[in-house]
Amino acid sequence: MMSAWNKRTIDGVLLDITGVLYESGTGGGTPIPGSISAVKKLKASGIPVRFCTNETTTTRRKLVEKLEKLGFKLDENEIFAPIPAVCSILRQRGLRPHLLVHPDCVPDFEGVDTRNPNCVVISDATHEFSYENMNRAFQLLMTLDKPILFSLGAGKFYKEDDKLVLDVGAYMKALEYATDVKAEIVGKPSPAFFNTAVHDMEVLPDRVVMVGDDIVNDVGGAQACGMRGVQVRTGKYRQLDENHPTVKPDGYVENLAEAVDLILCKK
Amino acid sequence: MMSAWNKRTIDGVLLDITGVLYESGTGGGTPIPGSISAVKKLKASGIPVRFCTNETTTTRRKLVEKLEKLGFKLDENEIFAPIPAVCSILRQRGLRPHLLVHPDCVPDFEGVDTRNPNCVVISDATHEFSYENMNRAFQLLMTLDKPILFSLGAGKFYKEDDKLVLDVGAYMKALEYATDVKAEIVGKPSPAFFNTAVHDMEVLPDRVVMVGDDIVNDVGGAQACGMRGVQVRTGKYRQLDENHPTVKPDGYVENLAEAVDLILCKK
Repeated sequence: MMSAWNKRTIDGVLLDITGVLYESGTGGGTPIPGSISAVKKLKASGIPVRFCTNETTTTRRKLVEKLEKLGFKLDENEIFAPIPAVCSILRQRGLRPHLLVHPDCVPDFEGVDTRNPNCVVISDATHEFSYENMNRAFQLLMTLDKPILFSLGAGKFYKEDDKLVLDVGAYMKALEYATDVKAEIVGKPSPAFFNTAVHDMEVLPDRVVMVGDDIVNDVGGAQACGMRGVQVRTGKYRQLDENHPTVKPDGYVENLAEAVDLILCKK
Repeated sequence: MMSAWNKRTIDGVLLDITGVLYESGTGGGTPIPGSISAVKKLKASGIPVRFCTNETTTTRRKLVEKLEKLGFKLDENEIFAPIPAVCSILRQRGLRPHLLVHPDCVPDFEGVDTRNPNCVVISDATHEFSYENMNRAFQLLMTLDKPILFSLGAGKFYKEDDKLVLDVGAYMKALEYATDVKAEIVGKPSPAFFNTAVHDMEVLPDRVVMVGDDIVNDVGGAQACGMRGVQVRTGKYRQLDENHPTVKPDGYVENLAEAVDLILCKK
């Protein structure tokens, strides 16, 4: 049944982080067996690798430190994350955001003017998604002549401490419905976001493989950009994903270790 | 421009409560000028009247008491509200709900078995719509073989203390998106809900006028059942509603007093 996604040329690899490198949880989470050496092997092979994450509950610097503690070695500028992307969009368009984001990621918005806001940025704000904070974001959108809502990713849910928890996408839908404003998604599965990472590797999309645990945002998003999308059976993967109504991965692997073996050995 | 919605026979009238009888706010809100005598005149005229509300932040009994304090006289059994409707559905289908509802309405669920829940009921839970409570409802839906989500109404927002605040519909959309479960709406604009009130008046839908402030749930919902839908320019009414992409009311009135004058005098 497995399509030979690893038989065609692979000039670059994009990896999701959470659910692929490690399982999140209290105390920083735990590495997924085999992932530490898989990342090491892949980087040693010379194939360009970038990490494409929708992580917004921490700064990029702290994410690198956390991954280092878990045993992974990666560089801050190998990570493509929504906050730097949205900051550059805000600057380009002269927008001042009202932020409904996780407190731990706020340092990554340093230098962004948030006075007299004329747009709303939401990310995986977790406990900040209170009724009061949602109303504040909603009320601002209702008063703007040209309401703009940025959502850093559009994930439905993710796994934390063995439990599934709501992701930013659910709250994006709540605000979209109440305000009749269509959110601009910054992060996966936005093609602009994937393309920045592909461009950084100086390779062609059809020679890139994306490995992720999210059937829609990782696999479907990558495929929409002309890349191959491979789903791992770790992280938020659920058996049900294999009957997804619209997205069919180019391949399944048990975990990142198997993906890297298939990429490097092409067995 | 006004279509002559009051020229055809009117054998029954449905009235929304919040935003039509009174404006909500701290301390119970304030009656909308002219509404107290309008309700009195309408009831004295002999035309059957029912009150069709999506109010779920209180019990029906307390709602009647609150309206009495404001100066309105109405009977508990003239009020059609989502909680009695969903309780009867739960009984009929043998369902045990997990409740994410406003604490003040819980007494209206008395006698409903909530142990070992096999469905979720959400209503305008206001401050109970925390990230934690939303996750609890989400997680239950994700573990059920046949997940069922009831939403008591599907309103986008309403007005409180001169501010617009999110209504249950926003949170319904959040859960629908995260779980891929389509909510069953109990309350306006569900045709089954309107029809119960029409049936209670023993009249035909095309001889009934619904007066409400919500362009979609009151006006559009009533029209979908074959009734006339008239929008008041009080409550959550906004100028923007007059360019609504899909719903065109049979008429506009400044307030309930004008609606009742037009119903009774047919000028």
